[in-house]
Amino acid sequence: MRNILIIGAGRSASSLIQYLLAKSDSENLHLTIGDLSVELAQKKTNNHPNATAIALDIFDEAQRRAEIGKADIVISMLPAHLHFEVAKDCIGFMKHMVTASYISDAMQSLDAAAKENGLVFMNEIGLDPGIDHMSAMKVIDEIRDKGGKMILFESFCGGLVAPESDDNLWNYKFTWAPRNVVLAGQGGAAKFIQEGTYKYIPYHKLFRRTEFLEVEGYGRFEGYANRDSLKYRSIYGLDDILTLYRGTIRRVGYSRAWNMFVQLGMTDDTYMIDNSDTISYREFTNLFLPYHPTDSVEIKMRLQLGIEQDDIMWDKLLELDIFNPDKIVGLRNATPAQILEKILSDKWTLQPDDKDMIVMYHKFGYEIDGEQKQIDSKMVCIGDDQTYTAMAKTVGLPVAMATLQILNGNITTPGVQLPIRREVYEPILKELEEYGVIFNEKQVTYFGYNPDKLS
Amino acid sequence: MRNILIIGAGRSASSLIQYLLAKSDSENLHLTIGDLSVELAQKKTNNHPNATAIALDIFDEAQRRAEIGKADIVISMLPAHLHFEVAKDCIGFMKHMVTASYISDAMQSLDAAAKENGLVFMNEIGLDPGIDHMSAMKVIDEIRDKGGKMILFESFCGGLVAPESDDNLWNYKFTWAPRNVVLAGQGGAAKFIQEGTYKYIPYHKLFRRTEFLEVEGYGRFEGYANRDSLKYRSIYGLDDILTLYRGTIRRVGYSRAWNMFVQLGMTDDTYMIDNSDTISYREFTNLFLPYHPTDSVEIKMRLQLGIEQDDIMWDKLLELDIFNPDKIVGLRNATPAQILEKILSDKWTLQPDDKDMIVMYHKFGYEIDGEQKQIDSKMVCIGDDQTYTAMAKTVGLPVAMATLQILNGNITTPGVQLPIRREVYEPILKELEEYGVIFNEKQVTYFGYNPDKLS
Repeated sequence: MRNILIIGAGRSASSLIQYLLAKSDSENLHLTIGDLSVELAQKKTNNHPNATAIALDIFDEAQRRAEIGKADIVISMLPAHLHFEVAKDCIGFMKHMVTASYISDAMQSLDAAAKENGLVFMNEIGLDPGIDHMSAMKVIDEIRDKGGKMILFESFCGGLVAPESDDNLWNYKFTWAPRNVVLAGQGGAAKFIQEGTYKYIPYHKLFRRTEFLEVEGYGRFEGYANRDSLKYRSIYGLDDILTLYRGTIRRVGYSRAWNMFVQLGMTDDTYMIDNSDTISYREFTNLFLPYHPTDSVEIKMRLQLGIEQDDIMWDKLLELDIFNPDKIVGLRNATPAQILEKILSDKWTLQPDDKDMIVMYHKFGYEIDGEQKQIDSKMVCIGDDQTYTAMAKTVGLPVAMATLQILNGNITTPGVQLPIRREVYEPILKELEEYGVIFNEKQVTYFGYNPDKLS
Repeated sequence: MRNILIIGAGRSASSLIQYLLAKSDSENLHLTIGDLSVELAQKKTNNHPNATAIALDIFDEAQRRAEIGKADIVISMLPAHLHFEVAKDCIGFMKHMVTASYISDAMQSLDAAAKENGLVFMNEIGLDPGIDHMSAMKVIDEIRDKGGKMILFESFCGGLVAPESDDNLWNYKFTWAPRNVVLAGQGGAAKFIQEGTYKYIPYHKLFRRTEFLEVEGYGRFEGYANRDSLKYRSIYGLDDILTLYRGTIRRVGYSRAWNMFVQLGMTDDTYMIDNSDTISYREFTNLFLPYHPTDSVEIKMRLQLGIEQDDIMWDKLLELDIFNPDKIVGLRNATPAQILEKILSDKWTLQPDDKDMIVMYHKFGYEIDGEQKQIDSKMVCIGDDQTYTAMAKTVGLPVAMATLQILNGNITTPGVQLPIRREVYEPILKELEEYGVIFNEKQVTYFGYNPDKLS
């Protein structure tokens, strides 16, 4: 038996474990699933004979080393900042390693050691980052193989609620960490390139400069810019590209409505509200509106945001019950962002029968034989239930597949890697299709942002 | 001779040194003026026989201690974070100390040691903080002495250009650190209390919620909220006050115009612009506007900000030459804020004959015998020239006066202090009047924010 150590048995590990257990007899695999909570790890084994659950504290050095020493390969599904503890031991014990997280500076520092020892340290092989890299590099490589030159790359991804469970005015529910949704876009201006010009959007304008995206069978979406669209410019070999933009997908109208919270200051996470445990939702809302002796909170809100009473924006606010004087925040020393997260969670939490949905959308503009062309590549994945969510599938399956490919000697390039090479993306994208993760690529007319080639 | 050691001979030390030198014969004073630049220190002595200039590096421990050991009292005009090095030695050598800076946590930690040794460590005795504390506490104490109860305190201060030198459309020039002007209001929401309700204004709305202020003989001003209006709530004994607001004074129209830069994202200091050394002012401006193949930067700007061509806001932008394609930024690795500061400095730098102006405005609302009343207290100070500016006078004179009062045993309360006690503000406010720093106090009708007492 080949022993796979999986550290961290949280939400994103479900589909990953399911996949590997399903292959465990034919591929001769044994899974050791370690988590701080042995109950959680046990639950994820599904009582499969080829799996063992253990309580694992990665800060217990002796235990950590003992378990890593017994493994043939290690998957870390820990929070990103904890991978390094595991990675150091993987070097020491000469074990391959797989994570779905962004490559940190600490992780990158192990590149030489991993190469020396012939170890594959595969990272960023979940959904975003992960499937985005693979599905993009596949098309970019194909364009280059044909002799094309990339001039535009736009890439969007979003975790949403599936159409059959989409029953609120925001067309949104929390399908992943709610805190990240509330803080989305904060911490600096969004940066990208359009037709060769750098562009910066400050946070308070981010949700007003969106782009529409049409996905056949699913209707219209919108995208707002990510913080740093240029992060992978060199890695993808796009140093000369004219347009480079990465964004987050929401249903049309979400961003315009979310901008109300941004304008009011309700998404701020940098200071604590006085008496945050005892104030009501209504009092919270009133903190961000000017004082008036007689005007109601509602009237002040409408005036501040310029909302007519028959505007759908107003209904979206009412749906969240933010004017309720009886609902108490009940969070001690909370920031506005934390309070807003609580208010939203009342309405945006997935119900037991709800399903989630992942949408990814790439645009590839290129020049070939003097002509400008474009390929659009789109993927929609719907969750099965609340365990095998679209998020768990798209994050976990590529991790599991990469692990098996490395074990079987099909992925061999050593060092701290991300999945941009053919040896990685070709087999994994192909296998993902069997699990419903299918990219629909289509040649479309290239417009760019200067359709008439005006200067 | 009593030896006063003055550390730091920058702009704010001019009037301070002038005052002490003028009193040096009658008060038997010798000044030792230390600065990293002995030339600067020498210049400030004005060749007065009672002053010695020395090159002083406060990180040279031996020299620092030797000089502090020889002094009878030490004035630190260093940047605020450097006071602590001096303060520790003042404890060790048993010397009183005076600064114009906010009391840092480090400084506060010396309170017990200062008290034990009977040392006065007087801080926050410049303009703001300084004259604001003194002029406010004088009126607050008078109201309390009469049996009044404070219900409102608003306090505004601004460093501006004097009316006779006010010759640009912004009615503003840099009279103090330009960087602080560009970054004003950043780093968290503005917080205050209005009629018993906490209010928070996010940075991107700060310059749109201003208050008008009328100063007889000088016309109309406006105030925008400071970051933390509640900082002195307890220190002033105002824990139960209904309205507490501190703000910054500008000429009417400045804030609305400044808000254009905020909305565009040009005041951001958190990231660096690519190729900031080679781009033009026009290219810088275009970074914050959406791409368009044919629309000019000017048209995009007008559309983005909603400015008509005959709007004074537009003229204010033109005056700054931000659309100039030939002026090069020329700053390496600069943030938007640094580039904006450079652009503004081209136009807003004081010319040799320009004078500056300080405006301070307090409103005190109180209840007495069942009646609500209000006192407004206003002060305007105009600079003499570019050395003895209104800023140098209002910052430096209270420091100098406090130093002499401490030396003469008139201010004696030991510990880390700020000037809120009668023993401090009474003599200093009185003496400041001789130097043209005069508060005009006037009984006015109390309105508050709920004039008709509606709930």
